[in-house]
Amino acid sequence: MPPMVVEGLTQPLLGHLHPEFLEIMDDVKSGIQYVFQTNNPLTFAVSGSGHAGMECAIMNLLDQGETILVVQNGVWGQRAADLSDRLGLNVRKLVVPEGEVISVEDFSEAVDNYRPQVAFLCHGESSTGVAHPLERFGDICNAYDCLFLVDVVASLGGAPFHADDLKVDCVYSATQKVLNCPPGLAPISFSEKALKKMLNRKKRVPSFYLDALELGNYWGCFDEPRRYHHTAPISLVYALREGLSFVAQEGIKNLVERHQKNAKLFYAALKELGLEPYVQNENYRLPCLTTVRVPDGVDWKAVQSKLMAQGYEIAGGLGPTAGKIWRIGTFGVNSNPEDIEALKLALKSALYEQKEEKTHLKAAI
Amino acid sequence: MPPMVVEGLTQPLLGHLHPEFLEIMDDVKSGIQYVFQTNNPLTFAVSGSGHAGMECAIMNLLDQGETILVVQNGVWGQRAADLSDRLGLNVRKLVVPEGEVISVEDFSEAVDNYRPQVAFLCHGESSTGVAHPLERFGDICNAYDCLFLVDVVASLGGAPFHADDLKVDCVYSATQKVLNCPPGLAPISFSEKALKKMLNRKKRVPSFYLDALELGNYWGCFDEPRRYHHTAPISLVYALREGLSFVAQEGIKNLVERHQKNAKLFYAALKELGLEPYVQNENYRLPCLTTVRVPDGVDWKAVQSKLMAQGYEIAGGLGPTAGKIWRIGTFGVNSNPEDIEALKLALKSALYEQKEEKTHLKAAI
Repeated sequence: MPPMVVEGLTQPLLGHLHPEFLEIMDDVKSGIQYVFQTNNPLTFAVSGSGHAGMECAIMNLLDQGETILVVQNGVWGQRAADLSDRLGLNVRKLVVPEGEVISVEDFSEAVDNYRPQVAFLCHGESSTGVAHPLERFGDICNAYDCLFLVDVVASLGGAPFHADDLKVDCVYSATQKVLNCPPGLAPISFSEKALKKMLNRKKRVPSFYLDALELGNYWGCFDEPRRYHHTAPISLVYALREGLSFVAQEGIKNLVERHQKNAKLFYAALKELGLEPYVQNENYRLPCLTTVRVPDGVDWKAVQSKLMAQGYEIAGGLGPTAGKIWRIGTFGVNSNPEDIEALKLALKSALYEQKEEKTHLKAAI
Repeated sequence: MPPMVVEGLTQPLLGHLHPEFLEIMDDVKSGIQYVFQTNNPLTFAVSGSGHAGMECAIMNLLDQGETILVVQNGVWGQRAADLSDRLGLNVRKLVVPEGEVISVEDFSEAVDNYRPQVAFLCHGESSTGVAHPLERFGDICNAYDCLFLVDVVASLGGAPFHADDLKVDCVYSATQKVLNCPPGLAPISFSEKALKKMLNRKKRVPSFYLDALELGNYWGCFDEPRRYHHTAPISLVYALREGLSFVAQEGIKNLVERHQKNAKLFYAALKELGLEPYVQNENYRLPCLTTVRVPDGVDWKAVQSKLMAQGYEIAGGLGPTAGKIWRIGTFGVNSNPEDIEALKLALKSALYEQKEEKTHLKAAI
């Protein structure tokens, strides 16, 4: 965490309806509008992690029995489909092989076939390292009166995203990635079209905690007096204000470009080490999270442990990619040439050690 | 926040499945078992505020169409009933006048009449300042094979509570009251009987984020490998570990007694000022949150603002008590004779000033 985020965290607690805290919430709201590149008035932070953002979106946008089309190219699509099923929605899936993307044509055909009320797409699929193209998907949804729901938990600030230009009706993210904050809040935004649908629900949202209209009132998104809804995680809201301000200082465009530039450095480093990115097409790689194929004969867990001992926390695969890849995040302040060079050296020695140990083991047997 | 809680908050972020973080979660789990006075293995913290704890409890304990009996003597019972209605449960209410409590006999009759699967009771009803008696309620539930669900958000550590002795099947709280932590986590615990019911659900829980069995796995409550579920609010978990440790140092019994002793000091101070507690029967008053009647002719909001200017944040009424009372919390570190004396003086001058202004205003007219 950058020092200003840590400082935010430690400020004395104000009440959840204290006038000064309401001002801080207003700042956070503007900051979220900025990073999402949207003018949606209904923009706030859900008091939970990124997954709570997903639940808030799906629970509010759809009524029981309605249809959601889920593009599934990794764990997040699976989750969205699972949650939709729990909610009694009619779930239609468009399954894409891991590490690949869906074409606009296939998407269009599916929307035409299933006529969903909402279509879900994960922009930064962190289980595979794919940054899914978003251009024209919103137009298709628009043409079919379907709401376009996008998950940018892992991609926000690390890959280009403009909610309004892309005709996104609902987008959510998390705070612990490029925003450099602790986890625990999920920025979210709803378009006017999404709001209109929510105002016309037949049944109430099956959660009060995640009811977007109640939350919108508490966050001052409507022209009405704010009511007590729940006690927001005050310290995390302070921290998010600082994290958003840190991003605004650099500028969202510069931030994305920095991640793209440093990702290229990392790809070159991997090449030097004889390692291969999991996502073949460089255009579809998520610049802030790189997935790397585990070479044949290498114990992925041993390498992970060796890196951890050196102070580098990298992840293994998730869901369909478990055991096959490493997932290496270079989010926010970690995206810089020095850390990438240091990471390369750490990775090199971990791979070398692991190979050595294996050789010794073989010799001993 | 005590310094050790602040220090906890600012520790560097570990991954949500980092072995050291898992150890911290284990400590938090033990600490929650201690403050709830329970041996329930299924004990953890929900990643959300106290209301998320309520949602987690109700969503998991009941299947759609089942019956919940809600004892409603303030806002929290209303909320529990509202949420249950959103979830498609059969809601039966036992409404008690604000500031009063229900008798064991009336409760028993209602359980006999409605045969609910779950009975909800709020221990510390912060909208009225009542600490509801809990003795024998658990026995009645037990006799009718009904699960006993208790909200201790406002009362934990401030009024006596022993989950196991009271035969409580599910209890939840929040971190920002007596535990001296920032808000954002909801400690929760389920009995073996509650677990058994959850394992036999007909339909899946309509939330993945709040699915108690998934959360129980992540928190290492079962004898099985931990899976990734969601990203816990790492910093808040650190802080909660410190908050629980702070409580353990004093001892839960001593902590409750301190709140009780200082509450008596506060009642005496109110008497000195000619103010009257809202809850008539001293035995039913919540020691950590005192509700005070707004005297006739006094502008409650003006007094609140004057106190705020002096650095004392007190609340007005909530729901049915709005405008009628002030709610004055003396939670955790704030429960001490010095602060209560200072609060008395602040309250005295705020009341005096408000009276003076009114006199001047009248004279001017």
